[in-house]
Amino acid sequence: MRERIERLRGLLEEPLLITNPINVLYLTGLDSSNAALLVEPDRVRLFTDFRYIEEARAVEGVEAVQTKRSLIAWLAENLTGTVGFEASILPWTFADQLRGGGLELVPRQGLVEQLRAVKDEAELDSFRQACAITDRVFERLVAEVKFVGRPERDVAWEITRLYHEEGAHGEAFEAIVGSGPTGARPHARAGDRVIGSGELVVIDTGANVDGYYSDYTRTLATGELDGEMREAYDTVLAAQQAGLDAIRAGASGFDVDASARGVIEGGPFAGTFGHGLGHGLGLDVHEAPRLSTESFDTLAAGNVVTVEPGVYLSGRFGIRIEDDVIVTEDGMENPVRFTKELLTVS
Amino acid sequence: MRERIERLRGLLEEPLLITNPINVLYLTGLDSSNAALLVEPDRVRLFTDFRYIEEARAVEGVEAVQTKRSLIAWLAENLTGTVGFEASILPWTFADQLRGGGLELVPRQGLVEQLRAVKDEAELDSFRQACAITDRVFERLVAEVKFVGRPERDVAWEITRLYHEEGAHGEAFEAIVGSGPTGARPHARAGDRVIGSGELVVIDTGANVDGYYSDYTRTLATGELDGEMREAYDTVLAAQQAGLDAIRAGASGFDVDASARGVIEGGPFAGTFGHGLGHGLGLDVHEAPRLSTESFDTLAAGNVVTVEPGVYLSGRFGIRIEDDVIVTEDGMENPVRFTKELLTVS
Repeated sequence: MRERIERLRGLLEEPLLITNPINVLYLTGLDSSNAALLVEPDRVRLFTDFRYIEEARAVEGVEAVQTKRSLIAWLAENLTGTVGFEASILPWTFADQLRGGGLELVPRQGLVEQLRAVKDEAELDSFRQACAITDRVFERLVAEVKFVGRPERDVAWEITRLYHEEGAHGEAFEAIVGSGPTGARPHARAGDRVIGSGELVVIDTGANVDGYYSDYTRTLATGELDGEMREAYDTVLAAQQAGLDAIRAGASGFDVDASARGVIEGGPFAGTFGHGLGHGLGLDVHEAPRLSTESFDTLAAGNVVTVEPGVYLSGRFGIRIEDDVIVTEDGMENPVRFTKELLTVS
Repeated sequence: MRERIERLRGLLEEPLLITNPINVLYLTGLDSSNAALLVEPDRVRLFTDFRYIEEARAVEGVEAVQTKRSLIAWLAENLTGTVGFEASILPWTFADQLRGGGLELVPRQGLVEQLRAVKDEAELDSFRQACAITDRVFERLVAEVKFVGRPERDVAWEITRLYHEEGAHGEAFEAIVGSGPTGARPHARAGDRVIGSGELVVIDTGANVDGYYSDYTRTLATGELDGEMREAYDTVLAAQQAGLDAIRAGASGFDVDASARGVIEGGPFAGTFGHGLGHGLGLDVHEAPRLSTESFDTLAAGNVVTVEPGVYLSGRFGIRIEDDVIVTEDGMENPVRFTKELLTVS
């Protein structure tokens, strides 16, 4: 943790007030919904209220300071001088409050996020363990779980149960189980729709190990599919491979997205892939860098990113295939073992 | 939903741009991590990206507008005129971006939150159902589940399983299971600590029904307790009753907190109740109004609040007792049925 704070200091032009709870967690190990960290050249103060002060005092190399529950109001009263703040995180009112208390504020963005995007070996280990668990959950899901005739919600529960049995510290997010037309809505939750036969079912799920996440998607068939569905599946699979092939340190998030997107846009499903190709994965399920048409990021060795193209036909079906990979100097390491062949479940 | 938007219009001095996802959900039913709602006198526009646009188009009485994924950048390019914004929610950078695009911004706070704080009958029904489920989970937990000799984490899993079996749509949050010294940290998660006998175990958990939450705490004994533990339990129970007795429409959040706090501060555990007495409960697990030493809120009929005093002895044990109640004109309705007698589990 100390080494992370040292690296952060190297990026700072003035003291930085960190209020993003995940950034505070990354730099101190303190998991709190109400904490702030002030990194100055010669001292580091960790501010939090009564509920978290015991944990804060156990953090090495920082001074823990107990504040009232209204943390920002307390900081406005007690801090002085010039500080940078996390302008893309801190709500407008809080910045206004700090200024009103006499602080000279400098808006800064993405400083801690930029450190977080490059994972160290301990972080990658947790990530690989999360992937290994999700692999086992998918293996057991297709081998043991009944799909046809059950509501999506029940399959989501089976996934929760399997994560518990396989030793995850929890799920990355509530599993998406999108059958038939539900699958055409990329972020639909598992609902009451009863899964039919001859349908496609999008399963998007991940594990949490030590706070680090996996995040995979596979699309399964429940019986014989029509030709269009099979063609769409093959298209998404080819797009995903093109995306994976484009990944290496130095590639731009825009270009990697374009490599996969071109496969879909060049075929009969043009216009049906409406989201970005992928996102960074770490202490947050969505973090830097982004792979998308709107990305300005450049990949670096040690980034962990999802690669998840999809085809979505409104009212009919959706397909998405997603792996999580570690960016290396000359390509990537893909720890995901579960097959991408089109599997049929019953 | 339309009626909610009408009530909101009655509070507005200029069009309001709503970016808090829970406020968007409350006003439209759309559950999206990337949406904004612009309420003007003669029209309502719901902005979201590809992933949620199908759901947005299904919302009655609003115009759904598809934006790029960078929603705020898109709004900055496409909106003009004077609009209020949710200043305690919107990050500083986004407000700056909207201003840079030529919008005249007026900081506003708590407008939708003020509507949300007063629940209608349908909301109260969901809340009462969530309470009924948590009652059944607690009944089964003390009757069926083994505590002593098991890690806290395993008991938390049993709670997750019981919620599923009792038909919750999920948990309000990851259950807190704090045994012995862990219980002295009010927000500690269930961890690897093995529960011993003769200890106190703080269980803080709730259900989700249709997006509405319950949130209870009970503290259980695992065998014979010493006199100080029993005295602390009785103190917290008396403090909670004093808090419940003080609740009615028109009471201040400060005074209700003080009623309960006085019981603890007037006895041998003075100084050990370091958090607020309670918080509103609805689409968010923590919302308006607050019952605390820092509260400026006044209770209104239809508020739903938690009442949760505690005593925390660092390194030794914690006790918290929490119900959720509906504020009425002359008092409150407490839908929580599970006993507050000190129960012993094995």
